[in-house]
Amino acid sequence: MKDIIIIGSGPAGHTASIYSARAGLSTLLFEGWMAGGVAPGGQLTTTNEIENFPGFPDVITGPQLMADMKKQAEGQGVEFLMETVESVDFSSRPFKVKTSSREEEAQAVIIATGATAKRMHVPHEEDFWQKGISACAVCDGALPIFRNQPLVVIGGGDTAMEEAMHLSKFGSKVYIVHRRDELRASQAMQDRVLANEKIEVLWSTVLVDVGGENTLDHVILKNVKTGEEFKQEAKGLFYAIGHKPNTDFLGGVIDTDEDGYIVTEKGTTKTSIPGVFAAGDVQDKVYRQAITSAGTGCMAALDAEKFIGENPM
Amino acid sequence: MKDIIIIGSGPAGHTASIYSARAGLSTLLFEGWMAGGVAPGGQLTTTNEIENFPGFPDVITGPQLMADMKKQAEGQGVEFLMETVESVDFSSRPFKVKTSSREEEAQAVIIATGATAKRMHVPHEEDFWQKGISACAVCDGALPIFRNQPLVVIGGGDTAMEEAMHLSKFGSKVYIVHRRDELRASQAMQDRVLANEKIEVLWSTVLVDVGGENTLDHVILKNVKTGEEFKQEAKGLFYAIGHKPNTDFLGGVIDTDEDGYIVTEKGTTKTSIPGVFAAGDVQDKVYRQAITSAGTGCMAALDAEKFIGENPM
Repeated sequence: MKDIIIIGSGPAGHTASIYSARAGLSTLLFEGWMAGGVAPGGQLTTTNEIENFPGFPDVITGPQLMADMKKQAEGQGVEFLMETVESVDFSSRPFKVKTSSREEEAQAVIIATGATAKRMHVPHEEDFWQKGISACAVCDGALPIFRNQPLVVIGGGDTAMEEAMHLSKFGSKVYIVHRRDELRASQAMQDRVLANEKIEVLWSTVLVDVGGENTLDHVILKNVKTGEEFKQEAKGLFYAIGHKPNTDFLGGVIDTDEDGYIVTEKGTTKTSIPGVFAAGDVQDKVYRQAITSAGTGCMAALDAEKFIGENPM
Repeated sequence: MKDIIIIGSGPAGHTASIYSARAGLSTLLFEGWMAGGVAPGGQLTTTNEIENFPGFPDVITGPQLMADMKKQAEGQGVEFLMETVESVDFSSRPFKVKTSSREEEAQAVIIATGATAKRMHVPHEEDFWQKGISACAVCDGALPIFRNQPLVVIGGGDTAMEEAMHLSKFGSKVYIVHRRDELRASQAMQDRVLANEKIEVLWSTVLVDVGGENTLDHVILKNVKTGEEFKQEAKGLFYAIGHKPNTDFLGGVIDTDEDGYIVTEKGTTKTSIPGVFAAGDVQDKVYRQAITSAGTGCMAALDAEKFIGENPM
């Protein structure tokens, strides 16, 4: 039996593991294998340059940052398994965690499985992912390739409006592509977006393809009312159609909200089951940044350490 | 007028500034000058090796990490002033922030002034600070110099008990030095501590001096009932007598708790004044880690960006 099992290998999982192992707790981290559609290391492994993780004045790549975190965790004695957790048994302690090939037990569990940005899966999307296509305007909007260029945001909710407002500071023009003829966003957000001269909403329009040379150069859009397809120049394409938190494997035993995000006691990482903690994007639909995830990973390890101290087995 | 003024230069302030400037907001950061008794860069400037800030598999020093964060912030266009904010006027927007020599205005303010660990100020304390003396067992307890060595914790509250429990995993013996003959800690914490074979409470005892060669080697203790002074071998001395959040300059205009910590809406960085946000140790008496501070600094910048978007001046 381990002291702590951590499920997930993004900044939250790695930071939790560093704190846990450093506190003298035996720590096993399940990295997953293409769990949630991404490689071990989490969503950052699909990004190129990171300018906003504090401590790195020179640009660092997502894969490098995650490799460094893993090396640091290994140095503290964390044990890693590159397997995907498929189910859990949290009905009693020790908690049980199962992959296709093994079952492991622990006194406490930290869930840090993240959330996966929804994509449109248009034909050439994969070719331009992180070469103009992004699912995070706050992360990527300020990059040089987007400055004073036409940009496209896909979505019609509050997040899409916020991303469009954010991008309007950098791009020459921001087109919001929305499949309906009205927005889901709150009226206040709509008012601000519609008042912004740099932003134009393309109503009743959907994305059908993307294109360019090495980086994104244009999108192909389709008006769903007329059926007309047209080309729109765009150096950036930002998906803001939501995220899917990776919580299916929990089988509903942990309280989640209506979107599937794990509910934590505010200001802590405590879930509905004492001894099970959650950190990172799997419990955060507001901030979703690498550094905020890392912060909650640390909190989860400290919360778990305290829990084990107070509830020895 | 700036978009955002940030007060404080630890991980929270720097991270907030990186996110703020990168979002295209004009950002001014007051670093302070020996504010709260520490240099620009905050409490980390008084630490040596940092093993638990994720992303650094090789040990980085506190001063180096803070210098790197500042360089990164400057690269994003943050303006720095090495002056201490002495008072504020948050009665209306734009908010006003005053030092001894200037007054600056901003649409939103982020307070990240930290908290200062209380010290005993015994005669040779300064000689061994971070050479055996620490105010954070979670930060420093796992360092090699403390392994299998006698350690001393000063304090009698829950934090002191938690730090002693944490240190008992590393040291050969942990002495809790407490000036009274009973602990303030909760009964549950006391029970665990008193049941731990590695921990011994030295009742009615106070610290009067410290000594050693290059690093701490012993402490001089005094029994306050008998007046007897005695030498106790100790390679580590951990102060757990509380922190003082740096909130005096606010003049009581922001809601704080009974210990002076700024109260934020849980899960956000919102304070009692809309448009004023708080991040880092000045609003956190539970986790107090560099990485958790950095996380809340990011949150504060995103909260402030949203506030300015919703409340344009």
